Amino acid sequence: MLRKVLIANRGEIALRVICACKELGIRTVAVYSEADRNSLHVRFADEAICIGPPRSAESYLNVPAVISAAEIADVDAIHPGYGLLSENANFAEVCRASNIKFIGPPPEVTRLMGEKEKARMAMKKAKVPILPGSEGVIQSEGEAIEWARTVGFPVILKASAGGGGRGMRVIRSEAELPGLFQAAHTEAANAFGNGDLYMEKFIERPRHIEFQVLADEHGNVLSLGERECSIQRRHQKLIEESPSLQVTPKMREEIGKTLKRSLEHVGYQNAGTVEFLMDEDGKLYFIEMNTRIQVEHPVTEMVTGIDLVKAQLRIASGEKLSSILTEPLTVRGHAIECRINAEHPEKFTPSAGKITAFNIPGGNGVRVDTAQYAEGVVPPYYDSLIAKLIVHGKNREEAMNRMQRALDMFVVEGIHTTIPLHRRIFADAEFRSGDFDTKFMERFFERSQPG
Amino acid sequence: MLRKVLIANRGEIALRVICACKELGIRTVAVYSEADRNSLHVRFADEAICIGPPRSAESYLNVPAVISAAEIADVDAIHPGYGLLSENANFAEVCRASNIKFIGPPPEVTRLMGEKEKARMAMKKAKVPILPGSEGVIQSEGEAIEWARTVGFPVILKASAGGGGRGMRVIRSEAELPGLFQAAHTEAANAFGNGDLYMEKFIERPRHIEFQVLADEHGNVLSLGERECSIQRRHQKLIEESPSLQVTPKMREEIGKTLKRSLEHVGYQNAGTVEFLMDEDGKLYFIEMNTRIQVEHPVTEMVTGIDLVKAQLRIASGEKLSSILTEPLTVRGHAIECRINAEHPEKFTPSAGKITAFNIPGGNGVRVDTAQYAEGVVPPYYDSLIAKLIVHGKNREEAMNRMQRALDMFVVEGIHTTIPLHRRIFADAEFRSGDFDTKFMERFFERSQPG
Repeated sequence: MLRKVLIANRGEIALRVICACKELGIRTVAVYSEADRNSLHVRFADEAICIGPPRSAESYLNVPAVISAAEIADVDAIHPGYGLLSENANFAEVCRASNIKFIGPPPEVTRLMGEKEKARMAMKKAKVPILPGSEGVIQSEGEAIEWARTVGFPVILKASAGGGGRGMRVIRSEAELPGLFQAAHTEAANAFGNGDLYMEKFIERPRHIEFQVLADEHGNVLSLGERECSIQRRHQKLIEESPSLQVTPKMREEIGKTLKRSLEHVGYQNAGTVEFLMDEDGKLYFIEMNTRIQVEHPVTEMVTGIDLVKAQLRIASGEKLSSILTEPLTVRGHAIECRINAEHPEKFTPSAGKITAFNIPGGNGVRVDTAQYAEGVVPPYYDSLIAKLIVHGKNREEAMNRMQRALDMFVVEGIHTTIPLHRRIFADAEFRSGDFDTKFMERFFERSQPG
Repeated sequence: MLRKVLIANRGEIALRVICACKELGIRTVAVYSEADRNSLHVRFADEAICIGPPRSAESYLNVPAVISAAEIADVDAIHPGYGLLSENANFAEVCRASNIKFIGPPPEVTRLMGEKEKARMAMKKAKVPILPGSEGVIQSEGEAIEWARTVGFPVILKASAGGGGRGMRVIRSEAELPGLFQAAHTEAANAFGNGDLYMEKFIERPRHIEFQVLADEHGNVLSLGERECSIQRRHQKLIEESPSLQVTPKMREEIGKTLKRSLEHVGYQNAGTVEFLMDEDGKLYFIEMNTRIQVEHPVTEMVTGIDLVKAQLRIASGEKLSSILTEPLTVRGHAIECRINAEHPEKFTPSAGKITAFNIPGGNGVRVDTAQYAEGVVPPYYDSLIAKLIVHGKNREEAMNRMQRALDMFVVEGIHTTIPLHRRIFADAEFRSGDFDTKFMERFFERSQPG
């Protein structure tokens, strides 16, 4: 087993990793910026080293400072958490060169998955379904019609040279195509000086569904089921749950097998998440892989009973999956997570400052992952996530009711948080029905007025 | 479903019941003494009524005040929690006369189980194993020898007229009997003016094992498995766990069947706990039944996934067990609870006063049931329990390690608590082995010095 681990992160995930290390008898080293001197991850680690000024670029993202701390503290390994250096293949290489274990996949795999088109091609080769795309420029209306016929409408035209929605058109029928093709071409040419267009299959109401995987260093991969993460605002997840009502046991098993085969093929190691879009017919399309622990990993832990961060540490210690997961995987009940951000709940502007009251809910089926506390401070320099409120119930109905009472009992004063927004979402009929997609928040804001 | 419930209790259990009501959509009414004005159970109930001065006799035990509050608030039912009025059959009768549902068994059953000898006889009749006793006065040494031969040594002599250890002798062999019989007789005669003695089978190293049951109002009883509660100090439980390492699936099933039969026979209703002593050979002997929810109910909730307080409320609403427990009972992992008392951890003297810091541990597998908070006050008038720290792990080993890290992260300042004592117990080899009995704490204090 690893002897001593440095946690190259801050906030709730740093504390989460410290908890896992403590439970495994591994010594911990926290690093912190000058803004985080009084943070709980500093308090609860066995050792703590200041690595620079508040700004992340000068502290948590400062590779030489992190590596120096690791060498001074004489650690075996570094856990990167999520965000920050967690998907930085160069950092993983520096760790390797410094003879420090990076808790994650090898840098080559991180790099492959980081280049989205390469990752798509690698997964496609391994028979993971990907969203159909034209693989190159569509030269004419005729070619566009031909391609759209093969994948079926709707499709979307995108400008090869740009982004930001310009040159982009959703086409729902063959009749619309010629006009929209011309419009997109003209718009792209005007915007980017290049009218080239490519096409993709368009999913009208996509769901975001992702699968948690674990892989040991002996070539074994296991899928631990899915999470439903469609409740997003500007591509930021707000609420996640497991299992998904739309994933049948058969789909779960099939995707599990496909992921096992494909990730064993690419030599994946440690924890990872494979993200998919699901179309209205329940078909899944690979979009990308995150080569780290996710913010929303607790919902999988609640329903499977498996501690994913402890699994990461044990995998990095060289253990086999067969010794970590000694019993057949079973799913019990339903779990939901709300991300509690230090933000104004309607304007979404960050809300840093001193917390004057912080009383977290407890009781049956309630878990809170946070590094905040009464009299703590939310610095203005970092991600706005200050707590994750996770509930577990025997079914989705019980979990939702439990989340409502837990939100009602979560007291944070001194700063704004997204708690009032979550309370409104959990009272929303569409959310409660379970039948929603990634456009949910747009519809929600249209119909819902803050109370 | 019940519409509105008054909670005739305070502290963590009052908040626990409020949580369950909120999740079921039931309105809640808190009652409070003048000392509990700023308590969380008052803050989180829909309504709150002050029922008297601090002393329990004038507030929480004041039946007319509680009933008046229930009538003023127009509730359907009263949940008594544990302690206080929870096993008071007269109170249950007043509720019935006032047309308010008492959430618990009928007063007749509470009364039967409250009279220990009657309860023993009722259970014996229903073939529940009870600790063998002489059923009347032992007149002579000869009769004592004869009785001891039938049940086997060791046996214990007790004074019919008294308690407090006087006239009490443990007899381990036939040779010792005449001398000890005379000594006990003389001591009893001197102490109580009555030398009558009776005998019981004596268990050298008993374990305290109890079974949780649920019974609906339609004649159905179900056992939800056992809790191991041998870690006690002066008959006060300190640590409880589930399942017990000593109870085999076969024993669990057999006791379950016996309890189902016997409790259906006595017309039991709602939640209850049947307490047993287990001897060195693993045999169980009924000692008493508690006709209420127990302090340690969460460990059963953690491993079964069943919310016992919600089950109480649904049973009291008239629901059948078959609609409350829709899936076969399964046990997942291992759960342990530590009672966090406001007491000096070595002297066990109560420690009331203002809390200056209160930071509860969170993260994977950790549950805290408490009504305390930063800047809260522990009044000197009530039970010293201020929080229950409950952990759940895939096995006992993981649960113990998790408890250790959770204890390390539980910050309470301003008062003394039993947290340091629990930390020492969880580092003790005998405790960790799982092979202990109700004498554990005596041995522990002999060998263990506060660090």
